[in-house]
Amino acid sequence: MSSEFNLIEKYFVGRQAQRKDVVLAAGDDCAIVTSPANVSIAITTDTLVCGTHFLASADPAWVAHKALAANISDLAAMGATPSWASLALTLPDVDEAWLEAFSDAFFQLSDYFGIQLIGGDTTKGPLSITLTVQGTIPEGKALTRSGAKVGDWIYVTGQLGDSKAGLDVILEAHNRTKPFAEVLEQRHYRSTPRVLAGQALLGIANSAIDISDGLVADLQHILKRSNVGANIDVALLPISQELIQFVGGTTQALQYALTSGEEYELCFTVPEENKGTIESALAHCGVKVTCIGQIRPTGVFELDYQGQPIDWDLEGFDHFKAK
Amino acid sequence: MSSEFNLIEKYFVGRQAQRKDVVLAAGDDCAIVTSPANVSIAITTDTLVCGTHFLASADPAWVAHKALAANISDLAAMGATPSWASLALTLPDVDEAWLEAFSDAFFQLSDYFGIQLIGGDTTKGPLSITLTVQGTIPEGKALTRSGAKVGDWIYVTGQLGDSKAGLDVILEAHNRTKPFAEVLEQRHYRSTPRVLAGQALLGIANSAIDISDGLVADLQHILKRSNVGANIDVALLPISQELIQFVGGTTQALQYALTSGEEYELCFTVPEENKGTIESALAHCGVKVTCIGQIRPTGVFELDYQGQPIDWDLEGFDHFKAK
Repeated sequence: MSSEFNLIEKYFVGRQAQRKDVVLAAGDDCAIVTSPANVSIAITTDTLVCGTHFLASADPAWVAHKALAANISDLAAMGATPSWASLALTLPDVDEAWLEAFSDAFFQLSDYFGIQLIGGDTTKGPLSITLTVQGTIPEGKALTRSGAKVGDWIYVTGQLGDSKAGLDVILEAHNRTKPFAEVLEQRHYRSTPRVLAGQALLGIANSAIDISDGLVADLQHILKRSNVGANIDVALLPISQELIQFVGGTTQALQYALTSGEEYELCFTVPEENKGTIESALAHCGVKVTCIGQIRPTGVFELDYQGQPIDWDLEGFDHFKAK
Repeated sequence: MSSEFNLIEKYFVGRQAQRKDVVLAAGDDCAIVTSPANVSIAITTDTLVCGTHFLASADPAWVAHKALAANISDLAAMGATPSWASLALTLPDVDEAWLEAFSDAFFQLSDYFGIQLIGGDTTKGPLSITLTVQGTIPEGKALTRSGAKVGDWIYVTGQLGDSKAGLDVILEAHNRTKPFAEVLEQRHYRSTPRVLAGQALLGIANSAIDISDGLVADLQHILKRSNVGANIDVALLPISQELIQFVGGTTQALQYALTSGEEYELCFTVPEENKGTIESALAHCGVKVTCIGQIRPTGVFELDYQGQPIDWDLEGFDHFKAK
């Protein structure tokens, strides 16, 4: 690592208070942490590559937020409490303005969730960001994709589809003139992972996943791992007025809701006996939840619109079929 | 992730036995592990970028070995026992021959050290590999860079300099005709991290580091963090006959030994009262150790050759000065 790259330390080292469970952060061969008894550790890794996951022209603050939010969302989907992050940053050169904006946004989100950056690596090469984020969870309590049971009700948090509309704005300039273009672009980059909601679902939900590939694709992950099927009433999907205005109609907005990736909302399933407790359990998080369908026996996958089967040509279907 | 990339699962998922402390590996939003009471967790992250850390033409088996060995070596330097790995792999396209050779070598080394691949991410982009590897260590016992005391004896494991000679072979074709070129190239890529040696040093050494930037540069990390100085008798540095033949003399070989990076040997310091126990402590590891100097008060940094000061122009010095 050239001396030039040592500048990077200035943006990442010593900017946070030390968590009590962090024995040693940056500056040695490894970081050292401790975890209390009867606690499991959840670990997730995600890479964002310039040109694949964001454009070179993207605001570095948004890139930092998106990279960290994607990982935190994975922890939220298990019901874990985020704790430690390791950052591997590959940079073509040392651009101090970029680093300042990136690191400020990184610490804004990590501080919000009490995550300490404990170490990482900085290398020279094509711009990419790999984060490994860890969290803790009571032993044996983690929400997984494999626990859904026939009869479970299927829920989602928040609203769906806005992230895909935001991506339209980012990728094609002509979309900037559409209604709410800027708001939707912000929602794409600046989602808030559902950490509190995930924790509130421990002991209530049978299964959970975060919506990163799109509702249809991610629900399929639950169905496959749980060996069950599902039906969804598309008319129930929570969509924003901004999205309806942007895409020019409710049907188009619902199609976006089914396939929009990088939403970082949770999709989860709840047994009948816990249906009544969902709203009160999530009330203190300020998170809206919507029941969108029900788990069925394996082999069933039905999309209805107010009881009538639909046959939309959705990208998310292809995504699923290809798997 | 395109369906093409799902092929990657075939090379990485389900190829290892499940460790008892791994509750959930690949296939969910996070991996879940548990750690016993009174144990700390050591965490390290390293990235290898094609073009920066290896050539596009490099044997993928060597790349895998190098990527994993670099991380394991960081754990060894703390005295930790490796346990779990997360692999973030960015690939320009799906090259099955490359993936097969890479994954075979990855599992050969990870199985040797009992490390389970618990998850990761695969993305499309310029070739690079980021590994986060974790290990366990008795609480409060980790070897660090900051524990060296004036009077400690300075040791290194193994032999130094071969890795740099191997790099010469890789980077410049004309070096292939020099003596032992192939052997030294292999040593560059296929070092064995000193995990057992690191564990044996717990409670005996005051400080330790792995030699990844070169002896001079890495020893300086210990000196800086411990606020001490050092003197080294260069004549004592352990060098191989192959290296002497390759570089054409003992003086050149010793210069290589001072600055050769990516050696993945350990440099550590031992108080006088533990000097006698070092050899017996390391005997069961089959690792050679050599005393090369002594810790001095801060501000002192002397390189002698059989008692006479030397003034060699070394890359490693510039590396240090730039920091």
